[in-house]
Amino acid sequence: MTLAVYPGSFDPITNGHIDIARRAAVIFEHVTVAVYDTPPKNVLFPTEQRMRMAREALADVPNISVDRFSTLTVEYAQRVGATVLVRGLRAISDFENEFQMALLNRKLAPGLDVVCLMTSLEYSFLSSSYIKEVAKLGGCIDGLVPPLVARALRERYGRESEPPPVPRYLSS
Amino acid sequence: MTLAVYPGSFDPITNGHIDIARRAAVIFEHVTVAVYDTPPKNVLFPTEQRMRMAREALADVPNISVDRFSTLTVEYAQRVGATVLVRGLRAISDFENEFQMALLNRKLAPGLDVVCLMTSLEYSFLSSSYIKEVAKLGGCIDGLVPPLVARALRERYGRESEPPPVPRYLSS
Amino acid sequence: MTLAVYPGSFDPITNGHIDIARRAAVIFEHVTVAVYDTPPKNVLFPTEQRMRMAREALADVPNISVDRFSTLTVEYAQRVGATVLVRGLRAISDFENEFQMALLNRKLAPGLDVVCLMTSLEYSFLSSSYIKEVAKLGGCIDGLVPPLVARALRERYGRESEPPPVPRYLSS
Amino acid sequence: MTLAVYPGSFDPITNGHIDIARRAAVIFEHVTVAVYDTPPKNVLFPTEQRMRMAREALADVPNISVDRFSTLTVEYAQRVGATVLVRGLRAISDFENEFQMALLNRKLAPGLDVVCLMTSLEYSFLSSSYIKEVAKLGGCIDGLVPPLVARALRERYGRESEPPPVPRYLSS
Amino acid sequence: MTLAVYPGSFDPITNGHIDIARRAAVIFEHVTVAVYDTPPKNVLFPTEQRMRMAREALADVPNISVDRFSTLTVEYAQRVGATVLVRGLRAISDFENEFQMALLNRKLAPGLDVVCLMTSLEYSFLSSSYIKEVAKLGGCIDGLVPPLVARALRERYGRESEPPPVPRYLSS
Amino acid sequence: MTLAVYPGSFDPITNGHIDIARRAAVIFEHVTVAVYDTPPKNVLFPTEQRMRMAREALADVPNISVDRFSTLTVEYAQRVGATVLVRGLRAISDFENEFQMALLNRKLAPGLDVVCLMTSLEYSFLSSSYIKEVAKLGGCIDGLVPPLVARALRERYGRESEPPPVPRYLSS
Repeated sequence: MTLAVYPGSFDPITNGHIDIARRAAVIFEHVTVAVYDTPPKNVLFPTEQRMRMAREALADVPNISVDRFSTLTVEYAQRVGATVLVRGLRAISDFENEFQMALLNRKLAPGLDVVCLMTSLEYSFLSSSYIKEVAKLGGCIDGLVPPLVARALRERYGRESEPPPVPRYLSS
Repeated sequence: MTLAVYPGSFDPITNGHIDIARRAAVIFEHVTVAVYDTPPKNVLFPTEQRMRMAREALADVPNISVDRFSTLTVEYAQRVGATVLVRGLRAISDFENEFQMALLNRKLAPGLDVVCLMTSLEYSFLSSSYIKEVAKLGGCIDGLVPPLVARALRERYGRESEPPPVPRYLSS
Repeated sequence: MTLAVYPGSFDPITNGHIDIARRAAVIFEHVTVAVYDTPPKNVLFPTEQRMRMAREALADVPNISVDRFSTLTVEYAQRVGATVLVRGLRAISDFENEFQMALLNRKLAPGLDVVCLMTSLEYSFLSSSYIKEVAKLGGCIDGLVPPLVARALRERYGRESEPPPVPRYLSS
Repeated sequence: MTLAVYPGSFDPITNGHIDIARRAAVIFEHVTVAVYDTPPKNVLFPTEQRMRMAREALADVPNISVDRFSTLTVEYAQRVGATVLVRGLRAISDFENEFQMALLNRKLAPGLDVVCLMTSLEYSFLSSSYIKEVAKLGGCIDGLVPPLVARALRERYGRESEPPPVPRYLSS
Repeated sequence: MTLAVYPGSFDPITNGHIDIARRAAVIFEHVTVAVYDTPPKNVLFPTEQRMRMAREALADVPNISVDRFSTLTVEYAQRVGATVLVRGLRAISDFENEFQMALLNRKLAPGLDVVCLMTSLEYSFLSSSYIKEVAKLGGCIDGLVPPLVARALRERYGRESEPPPVPRYLSS
Repeated sequence: MTLAVYPGSFDPITNGHIDIARRAAVIFEHVTVAVYDTPPKNVLFPTEQRMRMAREALADVPNISVDRFSTLTVEYAQRVGATVLVRGLRAISDFENEFQMALLNRKLAPGLDVVCLMTSLEYSFLSSSYIKEVAKLGGCIDGLVPPLVARALRERYGRESEPPPVPRYLSS
């Protein structure tokens, strides 16, 4: 049986992440969505909430579970008996980063392989950062994240008033 | 009549930005240079000063105006009746980012198109961040920004003493 | 005689940096490893320690020396009489950045040329940032940095408890 | 009035080309789709047929016309009084090529600017070469090219029997 | 049971291909190395010989078989009941091409997913084309291809005298 | 003494090549421009003429010589006692190719290092292929190649009448 781990910060989970997780679950016997247990000040949503959002969004897929981890990814994967790490590739910059990570991880844990899935066309422009920027400025994010996440973002940003420092797509 | 919006943080405006704005003004009936109204702590120059620098640098082009905005770019563009967003492409990393932004914007505002101009050769290595790094370390920036901007940078950094954390080109 | 300067923040020096420095020393008469004198709060190791680590790691190469600088790289290089800046290229994103830097530097100091060496295969996935992330999470970094550096990293992180905000390879 | 030229070999025109031409026609007063008059042995369809396919596919857009040219693109554009060249960007490799071409053209014809539109998501994987490969192997190309083009491809390849040398996506 | 197809022209199979095939065989129940049945004039080795070389090189892995195909890759994969296409990623240009192919294939065969493995460090510079160039010029290819393939290349090129048109790494 | 070899097909030599050769001659004791001895049918100019053009264009630099070779680049470099291969980097696609070549060459000849220089801004869009395309279509190439080369191209193409198959920048 091939156990695959799909690691990330998922802050929050997007429809792009969900697409990768579901497709991995078709290919592998079991997929664990592993949420990195980030210190609260560095993320928008606490670990518990990020896990809950992932769990609800994937509740209908029996061979997906959601877990948390705070160690090196490869250490976590080895501890739970996984032989595959799943990653989604969206674009060149993703690829670069993933390639480095794959090589480093292979050095740290030779028995663990990294498997990349190409992000579906309709989510290829999506990232958690973009979603947060758009939500912060009051833009519509329906269709890009599950309804539960859209609601959480609206609640979170409704309480704030300050716009983002500089939207990433204006960083010229 | 085609109204084009050229959005950015312009912190500060460089000769590369100016080149793009002038070329856009040859192609489109009117170009609005739209300065993102960033919270002061995240930029070197306050919004008012960034607008003033852009206005002076482009004062001789009758069909360019300068404005500010604090909403989503597409929302601003739609409100002022623009049908085109102008962006300058310098390099691969720019392209990636702009492609994602263009796709996301198209989803948010289907009627608005993104038009990219290739940065002129002599400015292809320029960015506001590099300019600020070089200026902070006392390097010569003449020919890279308008005289007004060069003066403002010297004033701004003359009052400080601390060098930049790590110049971006040393981030190895 | 060709004097080459190999500038960087070296926070800390890795086996990839060491490989580039040694190969440069085969090609050029003298190579100065120039450590950028970063404000302490922005780096893990103070300038003195970064220099000491570089010096020990390269002690057996007679035509390599280690120095510090706090000005523009090109200004430093010109002051010590160098005609060549050495840089290591690992990947595409490196290339982009280096290309911009080379063009900017050529404008600032026309007499100084930038020479790039391709990182050796076995270090092509290495960066100081990755090393720090792995070390912080308790991963094994033997073979990636000199023993002295591995020891310093363990000491430094042994005193802390908080995991990294979000490991770079999880920034999805 | 801004006259834009959209040059290409269009062998054959795809839904991706059509999307770019239609969007350009919203932005500019007039768009000329300019078909390069290639020597017959180098293309699948003769110039006349490539023009006819483009004309039919865009017949409903009043401010688009179709023409042919056999000189340098910039020479043709200047002769017909265009001030803008339109190009579609699909991916990184496109960008590289277009950037070089834009710089070269700017040198050859300083008064002519190159304007790039980002290919719509649903056509970002399309190219005339892929279409021809898929059609040659009997794959379904509906939805990727206009019906007229699909028909022409089927006719053209029905008469042949030999498969493509090596499909581009197998060139490993 | 997950059946994976690893398609290619394998002209000839390299140690890079072999590495990908073996790793895929660890992850999936069965892997079929599918050799594209290219017209003889376009390849160095006829289909039969390419299959034989692949078979010998992978003879010790029980869940790998070798087959040929002359249709669209997706058509072949569907016919043999595969749900996964395996591809090896070496570098950026690979990625671009594979991304396009994955998107196109997904359109042609929605039920088939593309899974990418990162080429092992020691083979990241390998390609069949490079191997052929080096072999043609009499360079040593031991360690880059299986002994059987090295022998076949020497035999093949021993009979010829003409050097390659222009080695790809000289195409400046 | 460091002897550097700058290999290429130089069909024909451009101002970009000349710039790299001259800069290499400032850094290294001696630079040999090594012209690959291509079979005539694959190049525009025979080897003798390509060497003559390179020689004339660099006649004023005492420490540059021009030679020919028909073996593997590394074999030639080792035979003449070079320790460095020089290559010019223009763009991302160059980088990819050069990186692969550097890794392969390092495997074939561990004692030989590859040194890359960044192409000067004003030649970053130049390549022999583009030059030939522009010349074939009668475009102006002054300032992009030495006068001698411009003359040779005009002579060569004056005798022909057929336009290029498809200019590379139209390959959409």
